[in-house]
Amino acid sequence: MSGAPWYLDCDTGIDDALTLGLLVAEGADLKGIGSVSGNLSSVGGARNTLDLMALMGRPDVPVAIGAHDPIGGVFGGGADFVHGANGIGGVELPRAGEPVEESAAEMLVRLAREHRGTLRVLAIGPLTNLALALELEPELPSLVADVVIMGGAARVPGNVTAVGEANIWNDPEAASAVFGAPWTVTMVGLDVTMVARFEEQHRVALESGGAAPAALAAMLGVYFQYYTPILGRPSCALHDPLAAAIALGAVQPTLAPVVPVEVDATEGPGRGQTLVDLRGRFVGYPAVPNARHRVVLGIPEGFGDQLLQTLLRLP
Amino acid sequence: MSGAPWYLDCDTGIDDALTLGLLVAEGADLKGIGSVSGNLSSVGGARNTLDLMALMGRPDVPVAIGAHDPIGGVFGGGADFVHGANGIGGVELPRAGEPVEESAAEMLVRLAREHRGTLRVLAIGPLTNLALALELEPELPSLVADVVIMGGAARVPGNVTAVGEANIWNDPEAASAVFGAPWTVTMVGLDVTMVARFEEQHRVALESGGAAPAALAAMLGVYFQYYTPILGRPSCALHDPLAAAIALGAVQPTLAPVVPVEVDATEGPGRGQTLVDLRGRFVGYPAVPNARHRVVLGIPEGFGDQLLQTLLRLP
Repeated sequence: MSGAPWYLDCDTGIDDALTLGLLVAEGADLKGIGSVSGNLSSVGGARNTLDLMALMGRPDVPVAIGAHDPIGGVFGGGADFVHGANGIGGVELPRAGEPVEESAAEMLVRLAREHRGTLRVLAIGPLTNLALALELEPELPSLVADVVIMGGAARVPGNVTAVGEANIWNDPEAASAVFGAPWTVTMVGLDVTMVARFEEQHRVALESGGAAPAALAAMLGVYFQYYTPILGRPSCALHDPLAAAIALGAVQPTLAPVVPVEVDATEGPGRGQTLVDLRGRFVGYPAVPNARHRVVLGIPEGFGDQLLQTLLRLP
Repeated sequence: MSGAPWYLDCDTGIDDALTLGLLVAEGADLKGIGSVSGNLSSVGGARNTLDLMALMGRPDVPVAIGAHDPIGGVFGGGADFVHGANGIGGVELPRAGEPVEESAAEMLVRLAREHRGTLRVLAIGPLTNLALALELEPELPSLVADVVIMGGAARVPGNVTAVGEANIWNDPEAASAVFGAPWTVTMVGLDVTMVARFEEQHRVALESGGAAPAALAAMLGVYFQYYTPILGRPSCALHDPLAAAIALGAVQPTLAPVVPVEVDATEGPGRGQTLVDLRGRFVGYPAVPNARHRVVLGIPEGFGDQLLQTLLRLP
């Protein structure tokens, strides 16, 4: 584990909850967490984040409420059919702490200035706050160490439309701004997150853990219900935790070419798609002029087992 | 080989030339061939078609000149960097015959009426003529037996843009009309055509054949030049012949789900993409309400060898 400072942007959500667990268990030096509307409203996401961080023994990490609405649009109401009405599968946690006064975008900009060149940015919800931070501080790309996102799909279908993945589809204008900014985004999309799974035995093992693992297990029961018809059995994709594990270096991608990425922000049928140019696929993805984004297309097997062992270390 | 009547729509083109060879060698009952601008102009494509059909011993098949410009646009000039300045790798063939008076769209409509319920339609260029025929005769979908196209890309990159395949990208409005009409389109796209290959040994073997195979070998030398940096060695994709072989039943797809297909006809970065909804991939592509298009995603190995043996039967 590096001692680098981290900013996490999330829409807490069940797989976001797993991600908080992973980051806490791995001892990531979280300087702040911003919420954004996605799986649920940004206010609801901040509430879940505060309560979960307290349950996991880290009530000290500041949580900022981020954007309620996407850039140029209106929040669509979230995905309670995936994550339950409160975003964490209906699990009721003790209420713990309050969000800070600054917005998530302001927090990100402040932390980037305070930790110049070392701040690691992990965004596992829609990219609204990052886009707002780029507006507040156009030099942001030169201030942060790196950016890893969960979002998009390169050579697999979307999960909201045929081609649109939820985080990108929820705010294509923001995603377009983030991929258009002069930094390298590591994109961890459905290509790899749909094959990173928790199965029933993982959920059952978490049930026997401490209070935090048991709460996560309860949430997973709801999450599995959504995924069962999609995956053909009780199990789930590990979207956000995989992005965190890759950012942490706990998972090393087996294939992650640096290739051009464009976001469809039209009103057409492709809205919300990440257009990843993989035309170099037959010759090992040779360097493409001006391409700078790293798109993860392959990971080793066994992430579910690895994540389980890490989460069982939580209180 | 069935004795069904065929209408072929093409933009002849080196892989179109291979396709003419395949259809002639297999004894397909070609009632007419229409040309369309794509690899080169529709006039140039008709010329190549006439000359090739004569060389292959079938000067009797009527050839109609089709649309010069895409629906609502202007022909962009073709792909001489792929197919050579005359569309067939600079190979000079004896000039043979003249096109008929009717347009390709008129020919298609007439043949569909004459061979009600039995006409097989194979389209291996942009879909302009098919869209025009649907305008001329809205009942066309109930008049033809089936439609097979070479075009699009479902889970692989495009070949003009990151997501756009040439035939669809050259006329997205036409493709949108064709996929929107009430018939089943069998889509043979880059998912399978990029892995159907001629290698250097196939080209060399054709050189030793009759006049037609030798002419095809000469064209392939030019085609290989375009593909060498893309595929990493002298070889080529067999786009159009694979679509014909699937239409003929000479190749049986190993995976071809019936799924929704939409065409991006916006002016955005996704223009010309076939958006194929493959979200059922983990559970064997269950039936989707209103889905009717058959998208070929897998083929057996060995199509290059099979095509070579067929083409060597030509004079």
